[in-house]
Amino acid sequence: MIKITFLPSEKVIRIPVGTSILQAAVEAGVQVESTCGGKGTCGKCKVQISTETPFENTEIEKRSLSASELATGWVLACQHLCVQDMSVRVHEQQDVYQRKTDFIGKLQIMAAPSVRKFPLTLSKPSVEDQTPDWDRLMAALPVAGIQFNRTVAASLPKVFRLGDFQVTAVLDGNKLLAVEPGDTSGRCFGVAIDVGTTTVVVYLMDLNKGTVVTSGAVTNPQQAFGADVISRITYASRGTDQLRELQGKVVGGLNEIIARLGQEHGIGYEEIYQAAVVGNTTMAHLFLGIDPTYLAPAPFVPVYRQSVEVKANEIGLNILETGTVVILPNVAGYVGSDTVGVMLAAEVDRLPGISLIVDIGTNGEIILSGRDRILTCSTAAGPAFEGAEIKYGMRAAEGAIEGVRLTEDVELDVIAGKKARGICGSGLIDAIAEISKAGVISPTGRFIHEPAQQEKLPTSIRERLRKAERASEFVLVWGKDSASGEDIVLSQKDIREMQLAKGAIIAGIMILVEEMGITPQEIDRVLLAGAFGNYIRKESALGIGLLPALPMEKITTIGNAAGDGAKLALLSIEERGRADFLAKQAEHIELSTNKEFQAQFIKGLDFKRMG
Amino acid sequence: MIKITFLPSEKVIRIPVGTSILQAAVEAGVQVESTCGGKGTCGKCKVQISTETPFENTEIEKRSLSASELATGWVLACQHLCVQDMSVRVHEQQDVYQRKTDFIGKLQIMAAPSVRKFPLTLSKPSVEDQTPDWDRLMAALPVAGIQFNRTVAASLPKVFRLGDFQVTAVLDGNKLLAVEPGDTSGRCFGVAIDVGTTTVVVYLMDLNKGTVVTSGAVTNPQQAFGADVISRITYASRGTDQLRELQGKVVGGLNEIIARLGQEHGIGYEEIYQAAVVGNTTMAHLFLGIDPTYLAPAPFVPVYRQSVEVKANEIGLNILETGTVVILPNVAGYVGSDTVGVMLAAEVDRLPGISLIVDIGTNGEIILSGRDRILTCSTAAGPAFEGAEIKYGMRAAEGAIEGVRLTEDVELDVIAGKKARGICGSGLIDAIAEISKAGVISPTGRFIHEPAQQEKLPTSIRERLRKAERASEFVLVWGKDSASGEDIVLSQKDIREMQLAKGAIIAGIMILVEEMGITPQEIDRVLLAGAFGNYIRKESALGIGLLPALPMEKITTIGNAAGDGAKLALLSIEERGRADFLAKQAEHIELSTNKEFQAQFIKGLDFKRMG
Repeated sequence: MIKITFLPSEKVIRIPVGTSILQAAVEAGVQVESTCGGKGTCGKCKVQISTETPFENTEIEKRSLSASELATGWVLACQHLCVQDMSVRVHEQQDVYQRKTDFIGKLQIMAAPSVRKFPLTLSKPSVEDQTPDWDRLMAALPVAGIQFNRTVAASLPKVFRLGDFQVTAVLDGNKLLAVEPGDTSGRCFGVAIDVGTTTVVVYLMDLNKGTVVTSGAVTNPQQAFGADVISRITYASRGTDQLRELQGKVVGGLNEIIARLGQEHGIGYEEIYQAAVVGNTTMAHLFLGIDPTYLAPAPFVPVYRQSVEVKANEIGLNILETGTVVILPNVAGYVGSDTVGVMLAAEVDRLPGISLIVDIGTNGEIILSGRDRILTCSTAAGPAFEGAEIKYGMRAAEGAIEGVRLTEDVELDVIAGKKARGICGSGLIDAIAEISKAGVISPTGRFIHEPAQQEKLPTSIRERLRKAERASEFVLVWGKDSASGEDIVLSQKDIREMQLAKGAIIAGIMILVEEMGITPQEIDRVLLAGAFGNYIRKESALGIGLLPALPMEKITTIGNAAGDGAKLALLSIEERGRADFLAKQAEHIELSTNKEFQAQFIKGLDFKRMG
Repeated sequence: MIKITFLPSEKVIRIPVGTSILQAAVEAGVQVESTCGGKGTCGKCKVQISTETPFENTEIEKRSLSASELATGWVLACQHLCVQDMSVRVHEQQDVYQRKTDFIGKLQIMAAPSVRKFPLTLSKPSVEDQTPDWDRLMAALPVAGIQFNRTVAASLPKVFRLGDFQVTAVLDGNKLLAVEPGDTSGRCFGVAIDVGTTTVVVYLMDLNKGTVVTSGAVTNPQQAFGADVISRITYASRGTDQLRELQGKVVGGLNEIIARLGQEHGIGYEEIYQAAVVGNTTMAHLFLGIDPTYLAPAPFVPVYRQSVEVKANEIGLNILETGTVVILPNVAGYVGSDTVGVMLAAEVDRLPGISLIVDIGTNGEIILSGRDRILTCSTAAGPAFEGAEIKYGMRAAEGAIEGVRLTEDVELDVIAGKKARGICGSGLIDAIAEISKAGVISPTGRFIHEPAQQEKLPTSIRERLRKAERASEFVLVWGKDSASGEDIVLSQKDIREMQLAKGAIIAGIMILVEEMGITPQEIDRVLLAGAFGNYIRKESALGIGLLPALPMEKITTIGNAAGDGAKLALLSIEERGRADFLAKQAEHIELSTNKEFQAQFIKGLDFKRMG
């Protein structure tokens, strides 16, 4: 195994010799843009390496990179196979990446976490000084008003003697979290957590430096109880045991990541003093073990809305047992702390003009800010964008079709350049945009039937459109080219699912636009958040009418902004206060009772550029 | 089973038909004075009954009671056997009982616990009012600044619907402990707990009324790890598992009592919202699961000293899981919250003149107050007063010799009037006082050897003084009269144990007297606290020199004042604040390093009235 260090994030990953830099980046959770699926054709994955060992650029690299780039260690991440330990600098080229770099810098600059360490030299007890351990500690600490903590108090006799009365106190505000023997002030860690309905992500952060040490993700283990929030609520509402089970599952998943990341970087769970958590309202309720039953039926009443602090051991999160778990505030039953995290990371209260932010995950949350207002709504986008409910749908993993182009035939981008196993959200949007443009489906989403129309299609495209048992379907990949040997098709039902999902989102956007009393053209910028937003091709999103028709340059992807919000809250007590402010400031527009929504939804169903 | 209700305490006990009132009182934890051991000779156990069924007084009663008493339902508690449900009024005749009655009245008058109930009628959610459950509750509550409580929040959806939005919030200050369906404001309970080294006592209290519903006691299950605090500290210091084991044992014992008392009175554990706890410093550390290791060796450093609040479920105490457990403050390593409880109940800061309070349990704690000072010290009295380390020693239970008189022969008071099984603390003091007075032992505590001296003793006394294997011994009970058939004797070693114990206590008293710059004669009152203090015969205590020579009327027993302190802290937030004040005010005099102590101790060893 060799060690690759990504810069500037300082993420480290160990990989077998011969792994491509791109693959290493995927595994390390470092975002390197790539739209050609590792073929070396898009040229977007260029990175700079700092290896002492000489190496040769491939022919493909020589075509993609400039002479000066070739001279200064630039390579294509998908082409360069790693043979030894090295550092890789990821220059984030585009606006999104510019923002990313800014964001990383911002984290480092603003690092002023609520967790602080105080190295202390204590006097030793004697018959003349029988001061109790707790009082001895309090007298030495420069912070007043500290509440008694039984667990920490219980540890003092041993810690004092282990450190020979040289200790380090760990405080969160005026809560004493731990006392450690010796001077441990150099080590101070926390985790930012994004509890998604589908995926849970943990960012292990150095609170001293304000950097992400490493990150990891797993499928939310609650997935076994249903892909969407409603099926989880239904399960949880059966009883306390079921609620506890769901709570235990998600915390278990997080603990697994935390343990793995900690082990890889030599960081003990007891050195992780705080967690900042975002998630949609249902996920936050389940994470806290709070009954979400009444979130499901109207009037969708959550149990709580404000930001919440609990002790780690109260919910079983395996960081320091007395550590603080901060869950960011929710706005409403279907606009959760993940959306507040997005607002925080996007600095929605500080952006000039009018901003539209769309976070498409298992649900679609929409934020429209401007004119001193922050409007939010949530649409039941359904998990179609994440590949669920789609015949050959899958998550954006190895073998997923993530890009589709129709020319004389179908051209595909498959993740990791492997044989296709299925299609992910961005691939679906691409596919529908392309077959719509080519006339394979009508704007209403039906596969064309008229032989006269079909004859206009190129032969190889026409051959792919065929009758299945009940309706037509379109073959994206012939069996000979797929991983399983089976044809990968797009069914009429798949198209209907996408249609409902995209219709709900554009309708939600239009409702907020109306509420603010503007026209869509007055929107100054569109920020696409979420893993999905990162990979979507803007042309296709505009082409199928997922977004209002705006110039492409107004659209920017901002990555997992919800997770970025969690990082900010972890690193800065001020940002945490701002999250509370944003959640209170946000006006929630309930779509289920909105009289305009149905009309907008029907208008939004067609696959065409919006007026 | 029949039901006996004791007045004015309203304690209820169920007993088999034919049980004596005295026995019922013992089982109910109601103090009825009796010094003859149930023979009907002392006449101290007279009580007034209110039964409709006619009954006849016994001949013994007719001799003890006046005509007017006989006419108004007075009986001797030891003579009257219960045959049906009835109420028994205990007229507490002596100063100690006067104080007891005062105390009960005081509790009822001052009942202003920190736990309060608020019945609330909430509006119901609708699409127009999607207010989260927590916010809905907060808006209805007349108390501000309430912190989020995850456990309570988790219960809200069900509780709101069960009560059809009519609920009762239970607050401890501004902590929300529970929300219950319907109006439950009539039921509000708490427990006052005295964690003794030997015995743990629970008083189940009605916080609305300020009354003791019932009480119960068990042997501290930590007893299995040693009778004294040092052996428990030694065990706990072996490791975390051992510390947890001791913590679990004592909490387990308390839970057992709480469950039993609750069941008997139809009070659920979740209706017990608070516990106020006193105990010596070691017991308090162990109760909280805090390592007491460094309490054992000099300089006897405790981990904490202040009053502490923890959640019930944090330490496993089986009251409402979110309920508050308040542990009163300690003064020093060997002057614990039990002593602070004594100060609180005795109102040591409000007594005029100079007061000496001696609480003799497994340790002996001494308080001397006056001249605007509160002095405390602790002596390693050892468990001799509780019958441990004594050959035939036993606790003050059925069959224990609790009183001894020497006339021509030995006369005994045995608890419950049964055949003697052993001797308890008060019996020991009596025995030693009497044999000392009769000249069976010299003032230095040695059995007399000179035949000339022995011949002066009455025959039946002389016969009891005999040589054993190594030293002399004195037969208190001949085998034919004892429960086991074995002779019950007082050994030379027993006398030495008592001598060390009493020597330590009088020395401690004298150190405090000197520290205050007074003479013993300036002491205005002596209050004897603790179970032991309750039964001690004042003449004997003065006779052996356990206390300074003072007129007998200055000496008052005040019962389990430590437990009374816990009751006060439970019932009144002000009293709890006063406990903190008293603990801070108290000046601790460390005897182990006191240069005068050794001299005073040697002076105090002799069995004679103090100068």
